[in-house]
Amino acid sequence: GVTEEQVHLIVDQALKRYSEDRVGMVDYALESAGASVINTRCSETYETKTALLSLFGIPLWYQSQSPRVILQPDVNPGNCWAFRGSQGFAVIRLSSPIRPTAVTLEHIPRALSPQGIIPSAPKDFSVYGLKEERDEEGLLLGRFTYDQDGNPIQTFLLEGDAVGAFQLVELQVLSNWGHPEYTCIYRFRVHGEPAH
Amino acid sequence: GVTEEQVHLIVDQALKRYSEDRVGMVDYALESAGASVINTRCSETYETKTALLSLFGIPLWYQSQSPRVILQPDVNPGNCWAFRGSQGFAVIRLSSPIRPTAVTLEHIPRALSPQGIIPSAPKDFSVYGLKEERDEEGLLLGRFTYDQDGNPIQTFLLEGDAVGAFQLVELQVLSNWGHPEYTCIYRFRVHGEPAH
Amino acid sequence: GVTEEQVHLIVDQALKRYSEDRVGMVDYALESAGASVINTRCSETYETKTALLSLFGIPLWYQSQSPRVILQPDVNPGNCWAFRGSQGFAVIRLSSPIRPTAVTLEHIPRALSPQGIIPSAPKDFSVYGLKEERDEEGLLLGRFTYDQDGNPIQTFLLEGDAVGAFQLVELQVLSNWGHPEYTCIYRFRVHGEPAH
Ligand SMILES: [K+]
Ligand SMILES: [K+]
Ligand SMILES: [K+]
Repeated sequence: GVTEEQVHLIVDQALKRYSEDRVGMVDYALESAGASVINTRCSETYETKTALLSLFGIPLWYQSQSPRVILQPDVNPGNCWAFRGSQGFAVIRLSSPIRPTAVTLEHIPRALSPQGIIPSAPKDFSVYGLKEERDEEGLLLGRFTYDQDGNPIQTFLLEGDAVGAFQLVELQVLSNWGHPEYTCIYRFRVHGEPAH
Repeated sequence: GVTEEQVHLIVDQALKRYSEDRVGMVDYALESAGASVINTRCSETYETKTALLSLFGIPLWYQSQSPRVILQPDVNPGNCWAFRGSQGFAVIRLSSPIRPTAVTLEHIPRALSPQGIIPSAPKDFSVYGLKEERDEEGLLLGRFTYDQDGNPIQTFLLEGDAVGAFQLVELQVLSNWGHPEYTCIYRFRVHGEPAH
Repeated sequence: GVTEEQVHLIVDQALKRYSEDRVGMVDYALESAGASVINTRCSETYETKTALLSLFGIPLWYQSQSPRVILQPDVNPGNCWAFRGSQGFAVIRLSSPIRPTAVTLEHIPRALSPQGIIPSAPKDFSVYGLKEERDEEGLLLGRFTYDQDGNPIQTFLLEGDAVGAFQLVELQVLSNWGHPEYTCIYRFRVHGEPAH
């Protein structure tokens, strides 16, 4: 059996990690730290009309959920970038040049989604390192699948230690979990080692 | 005794639930997901002047805490809708039509309130389902009491399984815990089953 | 060994405290509760350009991280007030007059900082109680050191029970942990007993 002291230690460690942005790794794609979405290629932002701000029934503002929200930590339901169909693109300028080692993709938990399913979640996606915005292809850093039955926050290790340094990273979503009209990205993070 | 593995399991489960908006249930009254306050009847918003934004002593903006804040997850002290007296009303248009099964009312913890008391918290309240905004009465879904000594987040199960589907829900606060001037609502959530 | 029930109790207690603004004490310097930064003396806000908001490469707004952010709970990387050099000042008007008993200073965890170091964190600092804004000195309530190797959230007990009541508190940062250009304050809190 474990002692009370050990339980406290385990709990404290878990809460420490929880308070470190949940994953305990620097996010070089965080907007507040200086990152930005500089291009979404041909992606068409889908107006879900979910975030209508109104007062006493008078619509004040349709909160246009721009691609920016994928670089923001608030992942309450609705705080996502929705694009039409199941394929979408985002070129992100990181807060500094890094040698990328991993990315993290996040969706809302099934428990917070009506009917307990998340069909608008991304499924297959690729990550590229770009040298400049105009790059059509860039260097493929990895191709992954977000698991609709897994943890809402999923981290994917990039291949190879020998990849160069990049300040531009492109997320290419290739499919979703079944929604016929749109796909939602709640948060995308990029981890790595600072390039000197 | 429990094993270390079991402790980790319990901790992980607790943090999972914590990260699922604390209660693990869809909130159909969440503003970011599309809900809005469409009417507050005769309630008079109370200007507490607590949220004065100023820079170098020059007031820039009195943050008018509109009724909208009760549909927003940020419950830091002051992020509430205050209305004059102890009776207030809010008609909420949910993000989609549902068969309501429960509501959740939230106030700040006593530990975060000066003097450790929360006299401005709501006490007795009723919840109604409305078919249209003009409905004077609607269908009573339940009458409850928020416990000033309980958990800051309190969920109340609605009566009956046979209630119909509603997209409009009215919160009627009937009394508070003793504040002579105003009552504060931090967050109100509505849970249920999607209506097809 | 401990029982499963005891583990649940420990976990629940830890999450309760976590949800009480992490420290379980009223923060009289919280902006949303009515506090404000009324003066920063000769401090020079440092434009780190980290929070550039842009859309498709077009800069929309340089988020000027004003001193206000030190009174706001969002401590995601970048949400700090940066001032030039290693000495900075902030006079805060608390949400109500109190007899101050403690202050809390917060920086981001090392795990969320590139290279795992926090050279821009404050090191030595003093706290004063002022009777009015023009006070050049006020009453020294304590001189402390923020530990770069400690918990990101550090609380410091003020000296003496016999100090009077104050609504103005001044934070004087005297040094940092080595950054040659600027110092960042993420959050500063003031705790105490309400003055009648
Ligand atoms: K987001
Ligand atoms: K709120
Ligand atoms: K802050």
